[in-house]
Amino acid sequence: MLELVEKTMREIVASLDDARVCSLYEGVPSGKRLRAKLILKIASTHPDAVKLAAIVELIHAASLLHDDVIDDALTRRGVDSINARFGNKTAIMLGDILYSKGFFELCALPSSVAQTISNAVALLSLGELQDVELAQRFHHDKATYDQMIYNKTASLIEASAKAAAQLVGKPWEPFATYGRNLGLAFQIVDDILDITQDSQTLGKPALNDFAEGKTTLPYLYMYEALNTEDKAMLLSLFGVVLSPSQAAWIHEKMHTSGALSRSIAHAKRLGKEALDAIGETGVEGLDKVVIQMIEREF
Amino acid sequence: MLELVEKTMREIVASLDDARVCSLYEGVPSGKRLRAKLILKIASTHPDAVKLAAIVELIHAASLLHDDVIDDALTRRGVDSINARFGNKTAIMLGDILYSKGFFELCALPSSVAQTISNAVALLSLGELQDVELAQRFHHDKATYDQMIYNKTASLIEASAKAAAQLVGKPWEPFATYGRNLGLAFQIVDDILDITQDSQTLGKPALNDFAEGKTTLPYLYMYEALNTEDKAMLLSLFGVVLSPSQAAWIHEKMHTSGALSRSIAHAKRLGKEALDAIGETGVEGLDKVVIQMIEREF
Repeated sequence: MLELVEKTMREIVASLDDARVCSLYEGVPSGKRLRAKLILKIASTHPDAVKLAAIVELIHAASLLHDDVIDDALTRRGVDSINARFGNKTAIMLGDILYSKGFFELCALPSSVAQTISNAVALLSLGELQDVELAQRFHHDKATYDQMIYNKTASLIEASAKAAAQLVGKPWEPFATYGRNLGLAFQIVDDILDITQDSQTLGKPALNDFAEGKTTLPYLYMYEALNTEDKAMLLSLFGVVLSPSQAAWIHEKMHTSGALSRSIAHAKRLGKEALDAIGETGVEGLDKVVIQMIEREF
Repeated sequence: MLELVEKTMREIVASLDDARVCSLYEGVPSGKRLRAKLILKIASTHPDAVKLAAIVELIHAASLLHDDVIDDALTRRGVDSINARFGNKTAIMLGDILYSKGFFELCALPSSVAQTISNAVALLSLGELQDVELAQRFHHDKATYDQMIYNKTASLIEASAKAAAQLVGKPWEPFATYGRNLGLAFQIVDDILDITQDSQTLGKPALNDFAEGKTTLPYLYMYEALNTEDKAMLLSLFGVVLSPSQAAWIHEKMHTSGALSRSIAHAKRLGKEALDAIGETGVEGLDKVVIQMIEREF
């Protein structure tokens, strides 16, 4: 089924009938297709399930194209990003093309489905701005961080599960709860991996978030647990490209302060809430998605 | 009615409940609201006319935010562009927010209307890429130029008129023909004004298109009319910031080759086709829009 999604994505792009766009699209890394997997599992019986999955993945790909420009990210999933290969402007324009073509296809689906997805895309765009604004200075405002990662990451995962349920006429609430918690956990796991993994495993620079001004959950927890002197030390490393000894200090304090284990426990708790929500829906395979995601190498 | 459109646009933006977005939005120049005017004239009786007009203008504003990043434009309508004031990244993110919020609101309108507008936005995004690709080198391919300006400029004006007719259940074909020809004429008039007006009147640098690699209709006609020696001279000025004597040469040849008058005649012919299309629809005021647009100072 996922191959059908890839094929449908290529067909949607090809329907623009522009050789340059097709060729650029071939260079967009495809990723895990998490959102498509959810949609296929929840709405597998519906003739439009593949189409919805393809639309959501095109929109997600568009958002990543713009994210990489905003974050000056030169690699994505271990390969050169589109902005690195063809420049920021091409990445912006290709993103706009995939966004708008995705929206066009979305308008042919039921209005409830279209509204669910498009609402999430508005939140996602807002979340990207909030992420950048938050990165202007160090902060220790967990509520704002929670809102930002909900908008930036969880909203489209929540919407994927909800829209798939709407497509097949299932009560959508448990699926939305599942998707929201899965999405939040997903972002927190990503934030943890930035600290625990090396660059090669990540396919992007390691320990990069804090250097970019992103005060993620492990840093929020760590700051909370540190004494005054160590708080000042942490603040002095905000937005800094770290020396090996500074990186070692962060690693050590992440462990000794309990920030890492607390973050992992939080991600697991969110995963548990996702599992609880879909326990009685009888849809197979959704639990595995959560378990695999939580069990990515910390 | 246009004030109601402005108010509705602000309300849509405000519904995102983010102070930074509201404040950035205040800095977006509002322009002529051509698309809103068409929608209000055609669908004035419909309760959703103002909403449709607001959505289309938000989407149009989003496209201009991204255009200004792509074109490195530092002024827009005589004031500093958002990218000039707040940087490219903020302009990209604000554009994404206005696009996606506009699409979300669009999904609540009838599916035919939503498809008409979203199809045009896909063409518009494609047109921007084609414009940039064409600017890589001098070309004299009028068919490609026609296709590009249709996508980039005319498609959303065509869609505005068509969607307004769809909203009120009028046969939409004459309105689409009207909008398409109006949009094509609009772009060609813009291309002419780049040559005939000074920077102050334009609110942006004059004689800028060819310096930016944009071989617009007057240049296509001029190239066609020049002898071999002058053709070579024109080619040598492609993509060049012009000296006063080079600018004077372009101005002279634009007149003596007949390229300018031929371009003006073409814009007028398109305007006439727009007028012919809506002659019998009985919708008042659409003719004035064409006449005012064609009669902008050459």
